[in-house]
Amino acid sequence: MATIERVRTDLYRVPLKTQLTDSMHGVMMDFELITVRITDSDGATGVGYTYTVNYGGGAVATMIEKDLAGCLIGADADQIEKLWETMWWRLHYAGRGGHATSAISAIDIALWDLQGVRAKTPLWKLLGGYDPKVPVYAGGIDLEFPLDELKAQADTFVEEGFRAIKMKVGRSDLREDVARVAAMREHLGEGFTLMVDANMRWTVDGAIRAARALAPFDLNWIEEPTIPDDIQGNARIVAESGHAIASGENLHTIYDFQNHIRAGALTLPEPDVSNVGGYTTFRKVAALAEASNMLLTSHGVHDLTVHALAAVPHRTYMEAHGFGLHEYMANPMTISDGYVTAPDLPGHGVVLDFDRLESLAVK
Amino acid sequence: MATIERVRTDLYRVPLKTQLTDSMHGVMMDFELITVRITDSDGATGVGYTYTVNYGGGAVATMIEKDLAGCLIGADADQIEKLWETMWWRLHYAGRGGHATSAISAIDIALWDLQGVRAKTPLWKLLGGYDPKVPVYAGGIDLEFPLDELKAQADTFVEEGFRAIKMKVGRSDLREDVARVAAMREHLGEGFTLMVDANMRWTVDGAIRAARALAPFDLNWIEEPTIPDDIQGNARIVAESGHAIASGENLHTIYDFQNHIRAGALTLPEPDVSNVGGYTTFRKVAALAEASNMLLTSHGVHDLTVHALAAVPHRTYMEAHGFGLHEYMANPMTISDGYVTAPDLPGHGVVLDFDRLESLAVK
Repeated sequence: MATIERVRTDLYRVPLKTQLTDSMHGVMMDFELITVRITDSDGATGVGYTYTVNYGGGAVATMIEKDLAGCLIGADADQIEKLWETMWWRLHYAGRGGHATSAISAIDIALWDLQGVRAKTPLWKLLGGYDPKVPVYAGGIDLEFPLDELKAQADTFVEEGFRAIKMKVGRSDLREDVARVAAMREHLGEGFTLMVDANMRWTVDGAIRAARALAPFDLNWIEEPTIPDDIQGNARIVAESGHAIASGENLHTIYDFQNHIRAGALTLPEPDVSNVGGYTTFRKVAALAEASNMLLTSHGVHDLTVHALAAVPHRTYMEAHGFGLHEYMANPMTISDGYVTAPDLPGHGVVLDFDRLESLAVK
Repeated sequence: MATIERVRTDLYRVPLKTQLTDSMHGVMMDFELITVRITDSDGATGVGYTYTVNYGGGAVATMIEKDLAGCLIGADADQIEKLWETMWWRLHYAGRGGHATSAISAIDIALWDLQGVRAKTPLWKLLGGYDPKVPVYAGGIDLEFPLDELKAQADTFVEEGFRAIKMKVGRSDLREDVARVAAMREHLGEGFTLMVDANMRWTVDGAIRAARALAPFDLNWIEEPTIPDDIQGNARIVAESGHAIASGENLHTIYDFQNHIRAGALTLPEPDVSNVGGYTTFRKVAALAEASNMLLTSHGVHDLTVHALAAVPHRTYMEAHGFGLHEYMANPMTISDGYVTAPDLPGHGVVLDFDRLESLAVK
């Protein structure tokens, strides 16, 4: 048995090359990256990470250091479910989701990575093993891009190998959204997979109105039309919009997903492995999706997520948007004709360049 | 217009006189107290606080300092709803509840206190003004107390002026719960208000079974029979248990409460002003309760909560359990024949002894 000997946490503020904007999170100039390195009694190390948008990263790092690391030291590194349960209940009062699940996620990812490293097996196999080749889409954070820039970004995505693109909607005038989506559909051509993401901007009535206005453009899905807290409102959107509705980057527990699925409040679960509770929770959400006859998509950290989607049969397009974190990786994901392939390396195989990250450390 | 000039946050670890235990949070030896002091451009100060059970306090303090204080400085101290919205969206990604609402709560409470101080008006009047005299119950955290100690604690509560008591249930053998409740009912006599709190320990089936076994003892309510995440399961408990079901200390948003109320998953909303988002959210939950023909109870921080319940017509018993924080107050609440009276002081009127707390500060 390998026991956990060391848990190291670091917080970085990573600058973005381009200023990004969506309808609700404001302007993003950088993002907070929280990394966890777990070393066992045999000297093997697993790496996990999570991120936040503008705020909250310090709290996540504090939870890992002060509240969670203590219950890991000396524990059997392979009893991940048991450690997960312990961490959940440690942070349950005032937690029960929220930043606590981001902290747990980073640790859970490191524990799974460690298990893969020890077993010399890629995570997509440990997690079930379906097919390492996963369809992928480019997630643009481009609400304020002028139309020319939006189209140029799409061309770059296609050059990079993408065959599916998601763009932001949710401008204050719906006619602008419609015009931008129409222009992108024309630019990309019929049959090119195109999705939109409203980042919770609309009211329920507004979402249904927008969905109808966007009906001519053959969208693969509409993402987060309104706040995920309104289960009944989202169910009305699913029932009346005539579109597939993706949601999940702001759902932080299996219960959140189950309550939405039960109520018919989404049709495409979109968990983020780095805020939903790590691989441990992601694969339970995958099971919920499969049992509910739903395809599974994803949000964020694609270099980690590819293993989770490569493990299950009912996945659809994985989101690729990493805020430029690939610049700090030895071996970032490469796209080929619309697909990525989970690496044939032990664990998740992501090698972060901690030396380069050092200058971005938040002290 | 008074603008906010300073936001001071402190984290303390306050020891408990008696080791406390409930069915899910483990043994409690102390609690984490996070205080916020907001001073405006006229030199007036408002005080707010929140707490955590064993873990998470460092993260809450970090959020206040690093993520939230910055948006308060220079802002109009009276635009509380607007500041609340700004804080909510700052911590929305990865947040949307959880520890973020505890951080927001402490600030919101300080802002309302500041408004009361400036207006030289008690908060219960600013919040609506119904009746300062509020019925109160003693919340025991006594799952592991031997029966003699449980009865002695009840006698102390009655001597202190309480006319209603809540005890913990959720022992591993249901027969022990039944025997303890039976003993307490006999000890207190018919007609004495007695509630029980399972702290989420039971399955849905187990809760219904326990509720039926506890039927002879005329309980005022059963609290948190199972995890609040299972909305459908709680609705089954409400439908089948034959008891009033209180829940809310682990619901952190108006949406959580609305989703539970809509589904019939609780009958007595029990918000905690220090983790639900402060007075701003508490009074919205009060409105939901009233519109749903439900009585409103509460959880925790009674010295603050008394103002929120004194402001509304449909309140029932307020929980009194403060982890001994009254020892660090100049003027703790006093109980008289089952009631407390909201103080006729500006703001919430709680004066914390920061000099005495200083030795408990977490650096």
